[in-house]
Amino acid sequence: MIKAGVIGATGYAGAELVRILMNHKEVEIKWYGSRSYVEQPYADIYRNMFEIVDAKCMDDNMEELAEQVDVIFTATPQGFLAGVLNESILSKTKIVDLSADFRIKDVATYEKWYKIEHKSPQFIEEAVYGLCEVNRDLVKKARLVANPGCYTTCSILTAYPLVKEGLIDADTLIIDAKSGTSGAGRGAKTQNLFCEVNENMKAYGVATHRHTPEIEEQLGYAAGKQILINFTPHLVPMNRGILATEYATLKKKADGSLPTYDEVKAAYDKYYAKEKFVRVLPKGVCPETKWVEGSNYVDVNFVIDERTGRIVMMGALDNLVKGAAGQAVQNMNLMFGFKETEGLEMVPMFP
Amino acid sequence: MIKAGVIGATGYAGAELVRILMNHKEVEIKWYGSRSYVEQPYADIYRNMFEIVDAKCMDDNMEELAEQVDVIFTATPQGFLAGVLNESILSKTKIVDLSADFRIKDVATYEKWYKIEHKSPQFIEEAVYGLCEVNRDLVKKARLVANPGCYTTCSILTAYPLVKEGLIDADTLIIDAKSGTSGAGRGAKTQNLFCEVNENMKAYGVATHRHTPEIEEQLGYAAGKQILINFTPHLVPMNRGILATEYATLKKKADGSLPTYDEVKAAYDKYYAKEKFVRVLPKGVCPETKWVEGSNYVDVNFVIDERTGRIVMMGALDNLVKGAAGQAVQNMNLMFGFKETEGLEMVPMFP
Amino acid sequence: MIKAGVIGATGYAGAELVRILMNHKEVEIKWYGSRSYVEQPYADIYRNMFEIVDAKCMDDNMEELAEQVDVIFTATPQGFLAGVLNESILSKTKIVDLSADFRIKDVATYEKWYKIEHKSPQFIEEAVYGLCEVNRDLVKKARLVANPGCYTTCSILTAYPLVKEGLIDADTLIIDAKSGTSGAGRGAKTQNLFCEVNENMKAYGVATHRHTPEIEEQLGYAAGKQILINFTPHLVPMNRGILATEYATLKKKADGSLPTYDEVKAAYDKYYAKEKFVRVLPKGVCPETKWVEGSNYVDVNFVIDERTGRIVMMGALDNLVKGAAGQAVQNMNLMFGFKETEGLEMVPMFP
Amino acid sequence: MIKAGVIGATGYAGAELVRILMNHKEVEIKWYGSRSYVEQPYADIYRNMFEIVDAKCMDDNMEELAEQVDVIFTATPQGFLAGVLNESILSKTKIVDLSADFRIKDVATYEKWYKIEHKSPQFIEEAVYGLCEVNRDLVKKARLVANPGCYTTCSILTAYPLVKEGLIDADTLIIDAKSGTSGAGRGAKTQNLFCEVNENMKAYGVATHRHTPEIEEQLGYAAGKQILINFTPHLVPMNRGILATEYATLKKKADGSLPTYDEVKAAYDKYYAKEKFVRVLPKGVCPETKWVEGSNYVDVNFVIDERTGRIVMMGALDNLVKGAAGQAVQNMNLMFGFKETEGLEMVPMFP
Repeated sequence: MIKAGVIGATGYAGAELVRILMNHKEVEIKWYGSRSYVEQPYADIYRNMFEIVDAKCMDDNMEELAEQVDVIFTATPQGFLAGVLNESILSKTKIVDLSADFRIKDVATYEKWYKIEHKSPQFIEEAVYGLCEVNRDLVKKARLVANPGCYTTCSILTAYPLVKEGLIDADTLIIDAKSGTSGAGRGAKTQNLFCEVNENMKAYGVATHRHTPEIEEQLGYAAGKQILINFTPHLVPMNRGILATEYATLKKKADGSLPTYDEVKAAYDKYYAKEKFVRVLPKGVCPETKWVEGSNYVDVNFVIDERTGRIVMMGALDNLVKGAAGQAVQNMNLMFGFKETEGLEMVPMFP
Repeated sequence: MIKAGVIGATGYAGAELVRILMNHKEVEIKWYGSRSYVEQPYADIYRNMFEIVDAKCMDDNMEELAEQVDVIFTATPQGFLAGVLNESILSKTKIVDLSADFRIKDVATYEKWYKIEHKSPQFIEEAVYGLCEVNRDLVKKARLVANPGCYTTCSILTAYPLVKEGLIDADTLIIDAKSGTSGAGRGAKTQNLFCEVNENMKAYGVATHRHTPEIEEQLGYAAGKQILINFTPHLVPMNRGILATEYATLKKKADGSLPTYDEVKAAYDKYYAKEKFVRVLPKGVCPETKWVEGSNYVDVNFVIDERTGRIVMMGALDNLVKGAAGQAVQNMNLMFGFKETEGLEMVPMFP
Repeated sequence: MIKAGVIGATGYAGAELVRILMNHKEVEIKWYGSRSYVEQPYADIYRNMFEIVDAKCMDDNMEELAEQVDVIFTATPQGFLAGVLNESILSKTKIVDLSADFRIKDVATYEKWYKIEHKSPQFIEEAVYGLCEVNRDLVKKARLVANPGCYTTCSILTAYPLVKEGLIDADTLIIDAKSGTSGAGRGAKTQNLFCEVNENMKAYGVATHRHTPEIEEQLGYAAGKQILINFTPHLVPMNRGILATEYATLKKKADGSLPTYDEVKAAYDKYYAKEKFVRVLPKGVCPETKWVEGSNYVDVNFVIDERTGRIVMMGALDNLVKGAAGQAVQNMNLMFGFKETEGLEMVPMFP
Repeated sequence: MIKAGVIGATGYAGAELVRILMNHKEVEIKWYGSRSYVEQPYADIYRNMFEIVDAKCMDDNMEELAEQVDVIFTATPQGFLAGVLNESILSKTKIVDLSADFRIKDVATYEKWYKIEHKSPQFIEEAVYGLCEVNRDLVKKARLVANPGCYTTCSILTAYPLVKEGLIDADTLIIDAKSGTSGAGRGAKTQNLFCEVNENMKAYGVATHRHTPEIEEQLGYAAGKQILINFTPHLVPMNRGILATEYATLKKKADGSLPTYDEVKAAYDKYYAKEKFVRVLPKGVCPETKWVEGSNYVDVNFVIDERTGRIVMMGALDNLVKGAAGQAVQNMNLMFGFKETEGLEMVPMFP
């Protein structure tokens, strides 16, 4: 039984971490960090936890916390962890960071897209990008894991095998992503009010969303070259779920023909057949966010459009689970040598 | 490890049973009965079960099923179980019936409200009404459990302590209940289409809903007399959740005053303080369906209105869990001597 | 063509006023008051008004505004109008107040429920309670109309004929009301975020909601005596719509029997047969909020429960139209001698 | 005052026609055709029309109907109008067909995508594609107008100026469209049940949706050549609204640079500045479906992505209004010489 601390435990991702860790056999939460609610009972903020979590919220003192726990999850605003991290902390505890602070290897890129100065660039190289299915072995040895973004996880896993196998021209990649509203966080903003979101849909952050460089960097590694893509996020009137619809031009084979369904399917299977949490759906079945709700699954599939020579790839996940807290726990399992699926065997809830 | 069969496994309640039993350590599902989908892979009907459930749907042959399993869950239309049940079946297997067939002790009452003939009245007396918190000891010894209705479970548990303790005049009880749409089942009816339910709210079955006599019978036992109540169900644009708002006149004490908050709270605590799945919320906190979603909890609370001398009681549960499949598993746990909470420790999912 | 000013034009009720007045032949809006957005183009706040409303938001200077317009609508927080009203203003312009400042005749009652001091008690007597169907003749002559609350309009109109005709015992009245979330206003509060409201339902303000004394006062006039009722509001995951489900004990006739359907129906028809905006639905049809969405209609109906001797009354309206802005325009039409339905003939939008 | 008949008046598009025509000064509906509900009062099917529409549903006898009215709207399944149309009918009445029967000029293309035989190819050439903003002059003279599809209207109008002006490479066009559920019609299908759609999102008909060739044909005319595009529709948990997000590669200018914002904006303004129903939003403002709900507006805008050399175009409309019934009325207005905006000046409803 290890001890864990959660900083940012009263945000939606932090609360999902708490939900998942409650049913994890190897972990006990010792610290519910929430700057806004210090000293208030956690279950007063999240009433679903009434009679389940008995603790009070604590502050975000990482130094003190590092003394007490084996792992810290930081579900915090951009810049928080980079602002406080030091070797002393990292020598005492492992960290899974759900913010973007250590996801991007190039500091200039980070600072350009996030518009803040990076305060701890010295830890960037060490940080492991925690996309478990891609970086499993590195995660196992990591002290500091940068947990991928929600859009990013979905976007990358949906296209990864085809980029890696060179079946598509990575520079033609266009990602049209749709997210439930929990991705916008729990801040009290007019634009996230029920009446503004319900019966509504919109794109936002067009050509400027911060998950773009993260996707480009990771898929660039797979492509073996730097790539530029289009990524457009949309807000959908639902609580949970991300659906990524991705378009790319298929590379023609030597004989000028397009890859076949079976050839593309084989690429997906090569990377995902043994992956518990990535499900390549049967031919003709489109992923739906509801089929993964509450679970750590990513469902993916594809359709080849012979007319245009493009492939349409689709991926669906729960943004708070595989897109945040679930993947964070999966990373923790790897870091501590637990069964990778421990605490994550929730069956998707339908309806 | 016992073996279970589910008849009606492709309805919403049946599918929820499957979801819950997947994470139950003592049970293995051997039979996914679904007359409409015989021979089709179960995961083709419920895609959330892809790579989780590998079985095909089977028919609803109770005779054959009884040979193979230790317990049968019937999540079937009214009249099905009463139409096929016999001593041979019951001698081989235990049954938890999620339909209304054996909930009502008086055949005439059943036939009047359900407008069908009861084909197996000989088993009515034996059947135990499976409201675990009230009938725990009887359930433990039962072969045949009548699992309570969703509205009923919520309505009864919300008022039970006050009726039992005589704090309210049971004949003044008015139950205004609101349900998510999964309670209407998965049948393809125009009235349950997204566009008809979304952004809409209505009462239905006013003064004629079939859960009325079930509530009256059970609360009548608690009151020690026959009672008549008003029960009005409403359809709400959400998938899951029942909220019951209940009104009753408080009985005045000998000195003519109303019972105090503490006195009423003590009545709730008397019956629920030790109950894992019933949470009496802190003073002033109203139950919300979202706080129990996906879990087996019922949250209850109350407000005394000094001006009118009435009490307003409120209860919330997930209609597919504590209102159906979760309670069915809780009953099974009692019937087989498992830990009562086994498979039911899901933390409510929020948001 | 008269000139109108709207104070609070960027709240939901104010914006609905703007929407309705855009299609009103006799009115031109000259002043879009919004303290929070002074000098910003109105269509920047409400993008639906792009290329429709060209004006900028102005402040809430009632003195100045009174010089310029024939009528002022105040869709403002409690206390605003009472804080600034004076005879000079009222001598220059008519006012329809959508706040509660002048709805309640007894200052002490107002101050008790609203917990603020009333700054202009001298205008309370003059103010006409603008429930058009009840007070039409008084409204026609009024300078100052107190536009009824959304819950109140629905609650009163649903029960009014039966109270007025003495068919029910008014003290047994219990009103269980459900509202869409626009009723909570556009303020950025965590509790009104999409993720908190969606897939959720709750009661709030139990026994303490401010519309209670307003209902009691108005139905008390109809009953010819002071009455006390229970009123419980609920928040529903939809944008618009209020559904009131009301319970009362029917008075028995001289022979001890209950009033018949026809007798009750006759009471409704007596008051509503000629009312354009109140629709008494056919027997057996329950009101649904979606059937009145976007329109000024109130749909009402009832079911007699012979078993309990109670009647269940139901009413549905759009809280922003008949529950706020529509009724305000209806009042203005009466005050200025326009056709009562002018600008209000919107057909309900379905789905 | 002309007389109109609506065939398919009880589908969602038909009902929206009825809603709009109720407030149209020049038209009276004489025939509410609905094969499924013949002889039933129309207001029994659409309760929002209670006390507004007094008529009963009639059959779909076009011959008889043509004798009685000046214009027929056919909001019918594919193949209906082509199956019954003849010169006799067309000589007596004008027709606005909301189905796809006469939208596509090439019969083979129609039969390939719709998988039914076209029974009246002789009228295809005469039929005018009723995209008012593009074909206004032809519509004015037409007897038979093929009203565009909902996805199609949104998709075409969003990209039209750039295709027409040659600013983008039309063959790179990728349209990712999202629709509310009313687009799926009122048929009682499991997949359209509230619980299946709510809290869910999916793509469907990937690479095979029938609106694809319609978009390709019309944008091909604008491009002056045949084009092939990708079109992916998605189902969103809302009643109304289509959002199209469209991607294309910008053609570089002679100096190798990309077109500027102002140059692209000028292209949009060239075609839409005088169009009442197409609103080009201010720079940086993304269209949202809620801002056009209930109205005949299409909101469009764009973002140039300098990094990838692509443009992201966005368009939003109400699928039942500008995407169906509103545009049908706009076409009728043109055909009969009424004011083009008559009956269509509804202000979008928010929230």
